[in-house]
Amino acid sequence: MSVTGPAGFVAAGGVAGIKPGGTPDLAIVATADGRPVPAAGVFTSNLAPAAPVIVSREHLAASGGLAAGIVLTSGNANAANGAAGREAAELLCALAAEELGAAAEHVLVCQTGLIGVPFPIDVAAASIGRVASTRGPDESDAAAAAHAILTTDTVAKQALVEGPGFCVGAMAKGAAMLAPNMATMLAVLTTDAQVGPGELSAALLAAIGPSFNSLSVDGCTSTNDTVLVLASGLAGRPRPGAFEEALGEACASLAAQMAEDAEGATKVVRIVVRGAASDADAHRAARKVGESQLVKCSFNGEDPYWGRVLSELGTAGIALDPDQVRISYGGVAVCEGGTAALHDEEAVRVHMAGRHIEVLCELGLGSGSGAILTTDLGYGYIDENRTTS
Amino acid sequence: MSVTGPAGFVAAGGVAGIKPGGTPDLAIVATADGRPVPAAGVFTSNLAPAAPVIVSREHLAASGGLAAGIVLTSGNANAANGAAGREAAELLCALAAEELGAAAEHVLVCQTGLIGVPFPIDVAAASIGRVASTRGPDESDAAAAAHAILTTDTVAKQALVEGPGFCVGAMAKGAAMLAPNMATMLAVLTTDAQVGPGELSAALLAAIGPSFNSLSVDGCTSTNDTVLVLASGLAGRPRPGAFEEALGEACASLAAQMAEDAEGATKVVRIVVRGAASDADAHRAARKVGESQLVKCSFNGEDPYWGRVLSELGTAGIALDPDQVRISYGGVAVCEGGTAALHDEEAVRVHMAGRHIEVLCELGLGSGSGAILTTDLGYGYIDENRTTS
Repeated sequence: MSVTGPAGFVAAGGVAGIKPGGTPDLAIVATADGRPVPAAGVFTSNLAPAAPVIVSREHLAASGGLAAGIVLTSGNANAANGAAGREAAELLCALAAEELGAAAEHVLVCQTGLIGVPFPIDVAAASIGRVASTRGPDESDAAAAAHAILTTDTVAKQALVEGPGFCVGAMAKGAAMLAPNMATMLAVLTTDAQVGPGELSAALLAAIGPSFNSLSVDGCTSTNDTVLVLASGLAGRPRPGAFEEALGEACASLAAQMAEDAEGATKVVRIVVRGAASDADAHRAARKVGESQLVKCSFNGEDPYWGRVLSELGTAGIALDPDQVRISYGGVAVCEGGTAALHDEEAVRVHMAGRHIEVLCELGLGSGSGAILTTDLGYGYIDENRTTS
Repeated sequence: MSVTGPAGFVAAGGVAGIKPGGTPDLAIVATADGRPVPAAGVFTSNLAPAAPVIVSREHLAASGGLAAGIVLTSGNANAANGAAGREAAELLCALAAEELGAAAEHVLVCQTGLIGVPFPIDVAAASIGRVASTRGPDESDAAAAAHAILTTDTVAKQALVEGPGFCVGAMAKGAAMLAPNMATMLAVLTTDAQVGPGELSAALLAAIGPSFNSLSVDGCTSTNDTVLVLASGLAGRPRPGAFEEALGEACASLAAQMAEDAEGATKVVRIVVRGAASDADAHRAARKVGESQLVKCSFNGEDPYWGRVLSELGTAGIALDPDQVRISYGGVAVCEGGTAALHDEEAVRVHMAGRHIEVLCELGLGSGSGAILTTDLGYGYIDENRTTS
């Protein structure tokens, strides 16, 4: 059911003509009655944010954390389009608001696709009413929305997490430009739990740390990253902690789905660092290893070349005593005390040949721990990204 | 002539048997008479440095900046080998010292190759006398040394810069693991200028900034990076500033040669940032753009996708006003005021189709400038790095 699973939400997805070829490219997620409800968002830290990021931030600030709906488009990021881009994003909100019976400042906007290409607002404006009028509360409506936000993704990404007496629905897109401080991605979460804007914002910030912010496909942080959550309140107050847990689970599910569908990836790799001087050090080290072109090439070649992992730990900007480092692939220690360890080579070979690889780096310095989800680097990523045509 | 060009130096290169297949893998660069002369070095900032880095640092410190020779090996980095690795590096110095008639602490050592593989010291020890005995002052001797330090390089890298009354000779290796705070590389420079250890050290630090430290192939800083310079003094005192200039030119030549021979690269790209709030900001931004997987894939595909460049500028951690940004490829502005600019598309297409690409980012904020030399990311890099076998 994803975003229409929680009571009080509707969704729609359809073809606006932004993408060539008649592929779905416009989605709506909204409250069923057009009523503004508590909402929260986290946006890219990029200093060249896309127009929809600027506009959604402004709307959330102006409304004090209330929203009735979200309009999402794919195929054009509406980034680096100057004042015309911002006007286009505002117009999308205004037109969607009209359809929903809401105020424009109660509509948020997410866009994804190519940067620096003027957004075809006329095309989108002409279609928004038609797509919005098909909105409904069914599983197929949510699926249509989840499908319409995809770019280079190969599958739709949805999640539904049941809490005690409420649920959290979610959808996302994201396959590359995935990196620090939020993967390049759009995600929309809905819930029928009764949660105020402040609580919602705090819960969202806590949820993205171990999920989206622990995912890095290529170390690039996009201009458009956005995660939004809307709470209808129809299921009443959740038990303390239950909502935060369910929201975290939904975000983790979406992040894992994005790693599985990462552009051209043949491996999904979890880099875990333990025994660091602090959690921050551990997270930083895991990211340095997980974003290393050389380490990622090794995963592609199924080569447990731990020397590159150790080298990255040495340049991660963290406290390190190389003589204390232990590195394991799939639970088999290949490096102990900073040097090669005799080990079961066949067990490591079998582990590396699988789709999921686990690298554990134990630093022996303290109790800090952290993890990053990443992928291999192979021909597929290059094929996807060498040209935009 | 490279390293034997300056008066007072000899060199040798030969087969020690460290690499399989009888490829040259051991080199010597030394003073002709075994006399210690002023020497300086810059080493990797990696916190897991290889044994030769540890030993060379210690020797330079103990000798107060004097050295009679350098022994270099390729095929095994002697990194992550613990105490055994450090003993092996010390033994290489001691054996070379014996051949040169010098003290062990007056010999420095550089090694490059695979990390975490025990170094075959017996093999190297048995060969060092034979290789060292072939040392001589000829062009062919310098070429043999330059050849014996290569790993995945396809060509030897040498330079000879003539100053007024003196000269600087140089050789280097480096094709990948090239990145911040010195590319993964070894470089040896010699000069007959009369320069003391302190001056030599200062000149070397100044020379590596715009050369090796402005080169990034893959953002990985190795465990073994080393640049060493020896000054025989036989040509007398240089004119003020002349030596610094010649040394800088030699380093720049080697850095450019490394970029030209970067693993699997089809393009050599110069990213220039101007108008930044400071030189540090400009350099940081150029590096962020130059190390971006997505941007590098675009170079491979000859796609002037400036949106990715703008996005990387936005996440470089520098002051940025996207509305002021101007981006040019090969002198043709494709983005003005942060948005797409009408331009001569054919001129840009022709520029991107060439081997050398120039990207200029003008930020419009101040007078800070900086540049990075980088490459594209394509199949070739992955082929070289997916497995070590």
